[in-house]
Formats: sequence, structure tokens, C-alpha cells
Amino acid sequence: MADAPTSRHRLLSATIDLVRANGYLATRVDDVCAAAGVTKGSFFHHFASKDELAIAAAGAWNERAAQVFAQAPYLLHPRSLDRLLGYVKFRRQLIAGENWEFSCYAGTTIQEVHETNPAIRDACAAAIDGHLEMLRGLIDRALVENPDTEADSGSLALHIQAVIQGAFVMAKARQDRRAATACIDHLHRYIELLFAPSPRRKSRKVPS
Amino acid sequence: MADAPTSRHRLLSATIDLVRANGYLATRVDDVCAAAGVTKGSFFHHFASKDELAIAAAGAWNERAAQVFAQAPYLLHPRSLDRLLGYVKFRRQLIAGENWEFSCYAGTTIQEVHETNPAIRDACAAAIDGHLEMLRGLIDRALVENPDTEADSGSLALHIQAVIQGAFVMAKARQDRRAATACIDHLHRYIELLFAPSPRRKSRKVPS
Repeated sequence: MADAPTSRHRLLSATIDLVRANGYLATRVDDVCAAAGVTKGSFFHHFASKDELAIAAAGAWNERAAQVFAQAPYLLHPRSLDRLLGYVKFRRQLIAGENWEFSCYAGTTIQEVHETNPAIRDACAAAIDGHLEMLRGLIDRALVENPDTEADSGSLALHIQAVIQGAFVMAKARQDRRAATACIDHLHRYIELLFAPSPRRKSRKVPS
Repeated sequence: MADAPTSRHRLLSATIDLVRANGYLATRVDDVCAAAGVTKGSFFHHFASKDELAIAAAGAWNERAAQVFAQAPYLLHPRSLDRLLGYVKFRRQLIAGENWEFSCYAGTTIQEVHETNPAIRDACAAAIDGHLEMLRGLIDRALVENPDTEADSGSLALHIQAVIQGAFVMAKARQDRRAATACIDHLHRYIELLFAPSPRRKSRKVPS
């Protein structure tokens, strides 16, 4: 079965792309097989159901993201705040091509199944949580290097993810990716302001 | 036909609630009729199709939001920046109850139909645009009263909407509305920082 990993991989990639464009419910197993160039027999060799496929796709999405962000250029910055701001700029650069190409498989699917399919929702939430954990590490190191900044890394990571997810919604609404990049620019400005030296806090250190 | 507006209204309300919980594709006309207590015959008296229903629901959603925000308590603040920050606090207060109760009909539907149903997508985008226009007015007045703040009201309105839409996604992922309120708290802080008097810019006004 030398071709098994390849057809499985093609099925997962096709699922991710079709769901990002058309949503989870609108994506039929037949569409996934056609896009992947895989027979339905082969599909059921890999996955027992469409639900199982969607859950595996959430795992594949998480792995793909982990690889992209583990090799990302911003990690080379020596200062931790530059790495965090570099992450935001990198997210902005990833907003290219058509809406479905930069949209998030996990966020899109969660919107659709959050009440109706807890297993798929939780698999997608786990993919987002994996990314949040990486992001929290970036923020924690920036906070250590900038002790004057008061922020909770967990909630800031959530906020950063929310801006990115919401930016995708705005791009889809406007049919214009510039609606998304404008939101990411505000996120970048927020982090700069949050980590900017506060004259008020600094003045407290000077004896009056 | 004295009861016509009432059954139409019930159908639109049921659509909004069911789509917020289950998504657009998963919501069947039969479900809407059952939730509204309206016969299928009566449904087709009001709407030619499920698409027409979804488009009308986007209009109803826009009207409902316009009413809520036209009467909102934050409008009583004398200072324009307090009205803008009051808007953000008000959005935070609206995050109550179950996820579907505070989620956005327009944002949820756009995620699902952005590629597959342009007519519904554009009706939902128009609802969001209506809200953005109101928000832009709040921001423009805050910028007039705070001329040192450099920001584009159109992109800031988009960003505020993105944070709110993304906050809903995070609450659905985490099954915890505190994930959403944490994001709104960061948005509040961003606006405070953005409008805070800048010591650097002020110092430029002092002749050196």
C-alpha cells in the first residue's frame, strides 16, 4: 500500500480547500473524492465517514500550521517583541490570493458545527488551541523582555486569533482581502502601543 | 390579512435563531416553520424560497441591530470618545446567554455561503455595512474631538467588527463566552491607547 499515505493526504488537502470555499455541510464526500482524484472505495478505506474525515482534516490543518510557523522568518529576530510583531506581519503576508485560500479551515468549520457536531467542533478547537499555545509562548517571552507591559498572554493570544478570524469574515463579506489586512494592521498597532514604554509608569520609578 | 406581518416576523426571527445555532445549510424550511409555528403554506405565501427567506432575515437582522444601537445607553455620554468606548462596553454586555444567542446572523451566514451564494452573502454584507456606517460616525466624532489621534475611521470600524466577529468564533471554539469577552476587553484597551494623548506628539508642539 505504497500509495496509501498519498491518497489520504490528497483527501485531507481537498477537504480543507473545499470546506474553506464552500463550508462543511455543502462539501460532499463525492466532491472531496473528485477533487482528490480518489475513488469512493479508496475514500472508505481511509475514513469511515465524512465526520471522521473532517476530524482528521482538523488534525492535518494543525500540523500544516505548526510546520509553517515553526519555520517562519520572524523567528530569526533577536528581540522577542520583534518576533511577536513579526508574527503579525507574517499573518498579514499570508492574506493573499482568493478568500478561501487564506481562510481558516478550523474557524470556518466551527462557525457551522458548533452546536450540531461537538466532535468536529472540538477537533477544530484543538487545532486553534495548538496555535494559541505557540502564540502564548511568543507573548510570554515578549512580556519577560518588557516587564513594564501589563498583559495576560492567554487572553492576548485569544485576541490575536479573534482579530485574524474576524478579519477573514470581513474579507468574505467585502469580497476584498484588503478588509482583512486593514484589521491586521490595527492589531499590529495595538501590540506596538501595548508594549510601548509608558511615560506614566516610568515616571513612578523616579522619586518625586 | 391582519396576521400576515406577525407570521412573517415569526419566520424571520426563527430563521435568525436557527441559523445562529445550526448554520444556514443545516436549517431547513420545515425547521423554520416548526419553530415559528407557521404552516408551510403560509411560509410560501411570504417567501418564494429559502434563499429569499435568508435575504429577508439579513434585512430584519440589520433593522433589529439599528434599533438596539439607536437606543443604546452609551449614546447619552457627552464626550464622543466615551460614546465609542461605551459602544465597546455595550457589545461586551450583549455577550450573554448561550453562544447562539449573542452570535451574529450575518457573520455566521457569510462564513458559510461566501463562495456558493452571492445573493445571500451580499445581503448579509449589507447588514454588516449598515452597522459599520453607524460605527464610523461614532469614530469620526471621536477623532474630531481628539485631533492628535491618527486613525482612519473606516478601517477602525472594520477592525472593531472583526474583533467582535472573531470573538464569537473563539467563544464557539471554547464553548465559553469568556473567550469572547476577553477579546472585547483587548479591543477596549486598544481604543483607549489609540486615543490616549501621545507625549511624543505633544512634545513636538513645544518649541525646542
